[in-house]
Amino acid sequence: MSHSSLAIDIDKVSGDTSVHEADDVAVEEPLEIQLCADSAAGSAAKSISITMRTPGDDVDLALGFLFTESIIRRFGDVAAARSVGRADPDSGLKNTVRIELEADVEVDLSRLERHFYTTSSCGVCGKTSLDALRVAAPAVRDDGFRIDRDVLISLPDTLRDRQRVFDRTGGLHAAAAFDAGGEIVLVREDVGRHNAVDKVIGALLARDRLPAGDLGLLVSGRASFELMQKTLVAGMPLLAAVSAPSSLAVRLAREFGLTLVGFLRNSDFNIYAGAERIAS
Amino acid sequence: MSHSSLAIDIDKVSGDTSVHEADDVAVEEPLEIQLCADSAAGSAAKSISITMRTPGDDVDLALGFLFTESIIRRFGDVAAARSVGRADPDSGLKNTVRIELEADVEVDLSRLERHFYTTSSCGVCGKTSLDALRVAAPAVRDDGFRIDRDVLISLPDTLRDRQRVFDRTGGLHAAAAFDAGGEIVLVREDVGRHNAVDKVIGALLARDRLPAGDLGLLVSGRASFELMQKTLVAGMPLLAAVSAPSSLAVRLAREFGLTLVGFLRNSDFNIYAGAERIAS
Repeated sequence: MSHSSLAIDIDKVSGDTSVHEADDVAVEEPLEIQLCADSAAGSAAKSISITMRTPGDDVDLALGFLFTESIIRRFGDVAAARSVGRADPDSGLKNTVRIELEADVEVDLSRLERHFYTTSSCGVCGKTSLDALRVAAPAVRDDGFRIDRDVLISLPDTLRDRQRVFDRTGGLHAAAAFDAGGEIVLVREDVGRHNAVDKVIGALLARDRLPAGDLGLLVSGRASFELMQKTLVAGMPLLAAVSAPSSLAVRLAREFGLTLVGFLRNSDFNIYAGAERIAS
Repeated sequence: MSHSSLAIDIDKVSGDTSVHEADDVAVEEPLEIQLCADSAAGSAAKSISITMRTPGDDVDLALGFLFTESIIRRFGDVAAARSVGRADPDSGLKNTVRIELEADVEVDLSRLERHFYTTSSCGVCGKTSLDALRVAAPAVRDDGFRIDRDVLISLPDTLRDRQRVFDRTGGLHAAAAFDAGGEIVLVREDVGRHNAVDKVIGALLARDRLPAGDLGLLVSGRASFELMQKTLVAGMPLLAAVSAPSSLAVRLAREFGLTLVGFLRNSDFNIYAGAERIAS
């Protein structure tokens, strides 16, 4: 049984007619992420985040969240990662993931407060956000990643084929990692775009595949600052979005030398930054 | 000049051709929300949130955020609300809103940590989320709100006409408050769905129109738990989404007696809860 969709009774209205029937909706449940620093020394688990997510790949989600927030730096930082606690009486799902860290890992939880940075010069602004990232993110290496225009154009169809198996709800976002040949390495889905991306990055981390200078990231929705930032921290040179990018996503891509593609659909796309990685 | 979109140079690829041209992207910039309890007594302003938003209606956004987080309960709680600080040197925009409260308003900032609730019974789960809301949200009154099927079907077109004026980017979400006759009372846009809804609710608060038992809420995207919760706190009896709802949005609507409509497009829609408010 899938935990990502739930059948419920609804009224389906079409013009003048209305039928009562079963329909699938995307499951959304809270996930608590607990961090246990130096578990060997008996440190208590600390709740550091609750996110609304679609159940499935919860450990990937937690790992990806901790990595893209720069709480953990490599998979070797993690001593154990597992779902814990009692199952939800309704769904049978566990909604807590506990990540135990190795004894020598120094945790700076103040990083979770990175959204609270301000400067005395201009208050909070896009520039401040980029400055904060400049400290946290790795420099983009000369990765050599190049992808053909036709391969890029083929990606949304490939993603849709992979997604169709899972998503009967129309309510799930998808994120995928792909290589320069257009092969989709892995796909993850979630009601939240950020979660789908964290699941992909967490799965790559658990496979010791980060930084992933040889992979691009494809998302089914829009490209925000937050998604561009996650792409950057994962060391991926290219973010391709089926829908529109924001101004700050473009600015971040240009300042950090990443490639940003938007409106990738129907054989068309726009290149907002880093055109040199796309071959015609 | 609009602050909601920005013209940038891009490469537009269509099949085998590529042209370099200007295109509009939706502006995304951080907004800091500061709260000043009892400003008359000289209390310092405290930064309580930074959200990525599209500039415009910033005070509405801050008011709506504070109201839907139950930090303020009525417009009378607010002594002053304004944009402050130095302008961003690039955009000329101020990115901080300071809300000053009346002296007698008790502020419980722990409400901002509502996402951290857990219980000893089953850990964090959808049931816990609803329990927490049950405390914070007003009971849904017998509001008498009824809307004709045809009126509901007409709403997305009406919204699109209103939105077209603003949005040349394809990257902005819209939220609108509408009455039972299908008239759109106000529309707000943002790169973030939650922000667009907070802007609508903040504008209603500033007009002393809350709780709004006579208005429905229309959103251009999906209906999540978070959006349903905001609808509930605003006392609005109906949420209509152009796209899919999540399982927890449906559960919340059913438990609290709200109407939830999804996939409202092309003369069709689904009713997930509260069908009694929709007349054929």
